[in-house]
Amino acid sequence: MKHNYVVIMAGGIGSRFWPYSRANKPKQFLDVLGTGRTLLQMTFDRFLAICPEENFYVVTNKRYYDLVKEQLPTLSGDQILLEPVGRNTAAAVAYPAFKIRKKDPKAVMVVAPSDHVVFKESLFTQNLNTAIKAASNSEKLITIGIVPTRPETGYGYIQYHSSPLKKVKKVKTFTEKPELELAQKFVESGDFVWNAGIFVWSVETIIAALYEHLTDLAVIFEEGEEFYHTPNEQRFINSAYAQCKSISIDYGIMEKASNVFMVKGTFDWSDLGSWDSLHEIKAKDEQENVVDAKAILYNTKNSYVKGPKDTLIVVQDLDGYLVTLSDNVVLICKKDAEKKFREFLHDARVKGEEFS
Amino acid sequence: MKHNYVVIMAGGIGSRFWPYSRANKPKQFLDVLGTGRTLLQMTFDRFLAICPEENFYVVTNKRYYDLVKEQLPTLSGDQILLEPVGRNTAAAVAYPAFKIRKKDPKAVMVVAPSDHVVFKESLFTQNLNTAIKAASNSEKLITIGIVPTRPETGYGYIQYHSSPLKKVKKVKTFTEKPELELAQKFVESGDFVWNAGIFVWSVETIIAALYEHLTDLAVIFEEGEEFYHTPNEQRFINSAYAQCKSISIDYGIMEKASNVFMVKGTFDWSDLGSWDSLHEIKAKDEQENVVDAKAILYNTKNSYVKGPKDTLIVVQDLDGYLVTLSDNVVLICKKDAEKKFREFLHDARVKGEEFS
Repeated sequence: MKHNYVVIMAGGIGSRFWPYSRANKPKQFLDVLGTGRTLLQMTFDRFLAICPEENFYVVTNKRYYDLVKEQLPTLSGDQILLEPVGRNTAAAVAYPAFKIRKKDPKAVMVVAPSDHVVFKESLFTQNLNTAIKAASNSEKLITIGIVPTRPETGYGYIQYHSSPLKKVKKVKTFTEKPELELAQKFVESGDFVWNAGIFVWSVETIIAALYEHLTDLAVIFEEGEEFYHTPNEQRFINSAYAQCKSISIDYGIMEKASNVFMVKGTFDWSDLGSWDSLHEIKAKDEQENVVDAKAILYNTKNSYVKGPKDTLIVVQDLDGYLVTLSDNVVLICKKDAEKKFREFLHDARVKGEEFS
Repeated sequence: MKHNYVVIMAGGIGSRFWPYSRANKPKQFLDVLGTGRTLLQMTFDRFLAICPEENFYVVTNKRYYDLVKEQLPTLSGDQILLEPVGRNTAAAVAYPAFKIRKKDPKAVMVVAPSDHVVFKESLFTQNLNTAIKAASNSEKLITIGIVPTRPETGYGYIQYHSSPLKKVKKVKTFTEKPELELAQKFVESGDFVWNAGIFVWSVETIIAALYEHLTDLAVIFEEGEEFYHTPNEQRFINSAYAQCKSISIDYGIMEKASNVFMVKGTFDWSDLGSWDSLHEIKAKDEQENVVDAKAILYNTKNSYVKGPKDTLIVVQDLDGYLVTLSDNVVLICKKDAEKKFREFLHDARVKGEEFS
């Protein structure tokens, strides 16, 4: 286990939980499920079963340093990687890959989002250990695939070679956010899993892939070799990021590399990508409403009502809506309007930074 | 004009503008139209054309004394009549009738609600002067009738003898809140007007009617003769109200008396009885929305959005709704749900007095 490393991606701003999540406190830093632990903290807890605490790294935007420090107080400053600007996931993978390699060339690195939820954690641990084992003694880029439960058009789909006897399956294709019709076919075929953004690879393998497919990026972060784990690391990173292009690890590497494999995630998973998905996993009343507020509902169903306890929310005659009051924003919209949230947030920001 | 008296009824708590209007600040004390003057103040202003300032009386609940004093600072304490408890309109008419008679037995008294709006005020003045003239030299109980513009089921209807040459028409019947079908017939017939709660009569005539139809009430307030306009008035009133039954002037007198007449109101009028009626008279955007808030609307029409300026309200996919945030209450309901507001307010009060 001592060569196991976990890199938690915690730099996202997100918009789909606005106005509950805000630019200065995105979703991963919120106790979305009301468990007493934030999504970032729950992610951290989940990986403690497979990785020593000193091998955790959190990649985030520099503006969230205090939030990470506060929520994960046992991490040292060296374990919190601060991006001066967001440059998508390829940079956020390359930076820790080179940094970790300097400390431990034999490292196997797990990359994971900070804002998803997992149920049946022991299965999660099993699946990750399977992937880690496979990644540590081969040149495999491994992704954890989630068995689709609906023709979701917001996710990436991974087609794999069906090899019933193998736990680690060869990947055929990556397809980003398909149209509904295609998504339906994917789900029906049984050959596809969702890309959950959880990756496992040795630093050696991922760095080789970076050199092959994203050479510029590899060269930029290789130059940091002398600065990682030193007081000059941040200064180097600030200038390195200024040169990075913005590209995702999926598009930059996973879709192009030939050594991509998949381990099925047998745990229950949600990316909490929308109020709708949160509604799905929360306790509901008889009319299928989730009420997380002091509220009175009349003839209202399939809705999500969320607000602070000192405000009364009265709702009549709504079906499938989100009603939320958070600080200085009231939002009433279709519960499944996730594709509109970017627009909501953009337009809100035009009205005033204080609303974003 | 020196025998003209105006009695403004300002004791109502109301519920139909909740949560904007609250138990501690009902609608008449709010600047509902955003003109800079509250409805009470606008009512006062409107009557200045027909009544000297010293002949105004405001009847209200004792809890609203400070609000009346603040909004109508030129009134003396003697002009603000404080009801210890609400006892409907018959008591609120009898009290000032006896009080005014003591000061001026020749008084003609106009009774008017404090929370309606009138446009074309010069016509209003004309109509009132017609009624005042008729009331001052005859034993007529006169009501101002509003020509119906829709089959409203929330109002009382007055049927009158069509006498084209007479400005003061004899009333045949009063019908409280008819069913829709009946209301439609009333409107079509052309023989009916709405009862707007604006009454004109000499104190002599109304007191005679009180003795005839509500004898107990007349006897109670007659006993105050020695106390009106003295420091002991309030003490007397407190005990008088304890003995009063709760009955409306319409039911107690107007529906029973044979000397009831009507002067048509030729002005434009709204009782602002609901958000829907307020929506009707306010400026609307192209999608027929009234927006009195910092708000962003997507695919929303026929709706009313009201909130404080420091809060952003984002609304998507609503048709015909009221969305309002006021202090510690958010209300989202059908814009025409006026009949539900009593229930909303009751249920809100169960959640906490601070929400009512």
